[in-house]
Amino acid sequence: MAPRGRPSTHPKVVVTRNLGPESLAILGNHEDIDVVVWPKDSICDRTWLLENVRGAVGILCTRTETVDAELLDAAGPSLKVLSTYSAGYEHLPLAEMRRRKIRLGHTPDVLTEAVADIALMLALMASRSAGEAAAAVRSGDWPARPWSPFLLCGPQLSTSSARPSLIAGFIGLGRIAQATVRRLVPFGLTECLYAGNPRTPADTAADAALARALGAPSVRRVALPELAARSDVLFVLAPGGRATHHIVDAAFLRRMKRTAVLVNAARGTLVDSVALAHALRERWIWGAGLDVLEGEPAVPADHPLVREPRCIVLPHVGTATMETRQAMAVLAAENVVAGVVGESMPAEVNLAQ
Amino acid sequence: MAPRGRPSTHPKVVVTRNLGPESLAILGNHEDIDVVVWPKDSICDRTWLLENVRGAVGILCTRTETVDAELLDAAGPSLKVLSTYSAGYEHLPLAEMRRRKIRLGHTPDVLTEAVADIALMLALMASRSAGEAAAAVRSGDWPARPWSPFLLCGPQLSTSSARPSLIAGFIGLGRIAQATVRRLVPFGLTECLYAGNPRTPADTAADAALARALGAPSVRRVALPELAARSDVLFVLAPGGRATHHIVDAAFLRRMKRTAVLVNAARGTLVDSVALAHALRERWIWGAGLDVLEGEPAVPADHPLVREPRCIVLPHVGTATMETRQAMAVLAAENVVAGVVGESMPAEVNLAQ
Repeated sequence: MAPRGRPSTHPKVVVTRNLGPESLAILGNHEDIDVVVWPKDSICDRTWLLENVRGAVGILCTRTETVDAELLDAAGPSLKVLSTYSAGYEHLPLAEMRRRKIRLGHTPDVLTEAVADIALMLALMASRSAGEAAAAVRSGDWPARPWSPFLLCGPQLSTSSARPSLIAGFIGLGRIAQATVRRLVPFGLTECLYAGNPRTPADTAADAALARALGAPSVRRVALPELAARSDVLFVLAPGGRATHHIVDAAFLRRMKRTAVLVNAARGTLVDSVALAHALRERWIWGAGLDVLEGEPAVPADHPLVREPRCIVLPHVGTATMETRQAMAVLAAENVVAGVVGESMPAEVNLAQ
Repeated sequence: MAPRGRPSTHPKVVVTRNLGPESLAILGNHEDIDVVVWPKDSICDRTWLLENVRGAVGILCTRTETVDAELLDAAGPSLKVLSTYSAGYEHLPLAEMRRRKIRLGHTPDVLTEAVADIALMLALMASRSAGEAAAAVRSGDWPARPWSPFLLCGPQLSTSSARPSLIAGFIGLGRIAQATVRRLVPFGLTECLYAGNPRTPADTAADAALARALGAPSVRRVALPELAARSDVLFVLAPGGRATHHIVDAAFLRRMKRTAVLVNAARGTLVDSVALAHALRERWIWGAGLDVLEGEPAVPADHPLVREPRCIVLPHVGTATMETRQAMAVLAAENVVAGVVGESMPAEVNLAQ
């Protein structure tokens, strides 16, 4: 830290949010780094940020700040590293950063298990009508809603004699999807289908090796129409951005099974909300579980998907566990320190590609 | 079926609820059995039932009818079999049935996977504050509730570097609990503890064999105080009745970890509701997921557990999947037919014990 009264010559890191004592301790341990932290427990003020980034070598930010050319300009040519408290980085100005040779750190891996937990939870909640069922209790309808044999019955996620197969589909089969596959194995998973990045070639040997590693009977890459038509449960777990925008659209939903459930625990932009609301209303599919939604957090109470009884909407809490948020904060701090001192980061995105 | 106009000499089976075409087809296939089905899609009328059971050989009932000495008297000495559309049978007059040598059929096994699915879902929902999170979206609070690093953060069910162990506790380790253990293995399960029936002796060799069969690192029987103190997630999956009444009481809850979650997918009577509401309010434990509640379905909207934000309450939907309810209906029909014709039932409760 700089002594009071005279300007420090140490590199400066601006932290847009206090992410807990563990993270600040890592930054504080470096006496040759000056750390400036947004002092309130609220979203970082833009004016404060533009002023304080001046001359900064590193910025540790969250998904709630707008990082754009104006902010990079305000920091100036001293800026060497941006560390985001998230695994995804489609909210950052990647081309600008590449041009300015600003390195990027992010927080993958440490959040894998927390998000896979939520993905499985949403699959269960959507198939078992958990939203409607809990609402019936909350509104005091339980006594007045007499039991009947098929009341609140949904499709069963686990296999049964009536439906002895469980086909799980994935848009994106990265770490979170793979952790989700592992969790589905004891439900009787019979097939794992996925749509991969179109720029990478199919590799059946790698798929077979992955199936063995995950304990799944099979892992197979298919085209989107087959993925839609055959999945009993479909997980959207691919990165956001232009390449995946509305990859789940009306045509995709139209092809799905009437008993299928859709889970999105990735980014809202991958699913066309208008088409999904229509699909649920018209019963093209059974239900949906969404941790993310286009345009979030500007999601009003009368949003068609929020009002749809067969849709569970959570406010982007996929990584929201004490353990994971702390691990993300530590990793984000380690990334920014490594970037400032010019060492290899624990988790760096290669922007040169 | 009896020809119109003259009394049938065929044995009569009374069915208190139309449980779907598959079940009725099994009964209808027996031309030498007269089947009388409550004709409405509602809870069977008591007067109708008392009249129609007269001279019946078999009754196929659900959990919504009161089966007592009066009903058995109304049926008379012809009654040989009672088939309940449920796995549990603590709602039936077992001593009376034993005395009258009435056989009992039930529907275990076919519902195991559906209930284990709900048990895992409730564990995830309770730990991840799914009730509060979904409520925030429904009430339109998402835009106004700015993101913060530890907002809506709960304990993580899966293991992490911060908490590398996952200890699951079970009150009762029957089929449903075992199916739940299997589902917990990919979450990083490190220990499975359970409280068994006090009347059966501990058997460490059998526990070790069970651990191997379930793919769990260990299965160990412990006393209730240790079970309470060490479990990260505690599942109540034992039968109801006097022996297990309020087995989870204030003393038990007091011993639990502050980050632990409690799941009850068995019978409401096992958990002291007043003590649980107190424990949640005072933060003795993190949260609870209940598919059953004492006194259900008379659960008003202002019930303390329904109003508790950290408590998820579902209206007893553990078996509510199309596949399982159909399989239960078929098994209940097969049980009553076997009882009427004097053959061995697919699933009979031995009342002689």
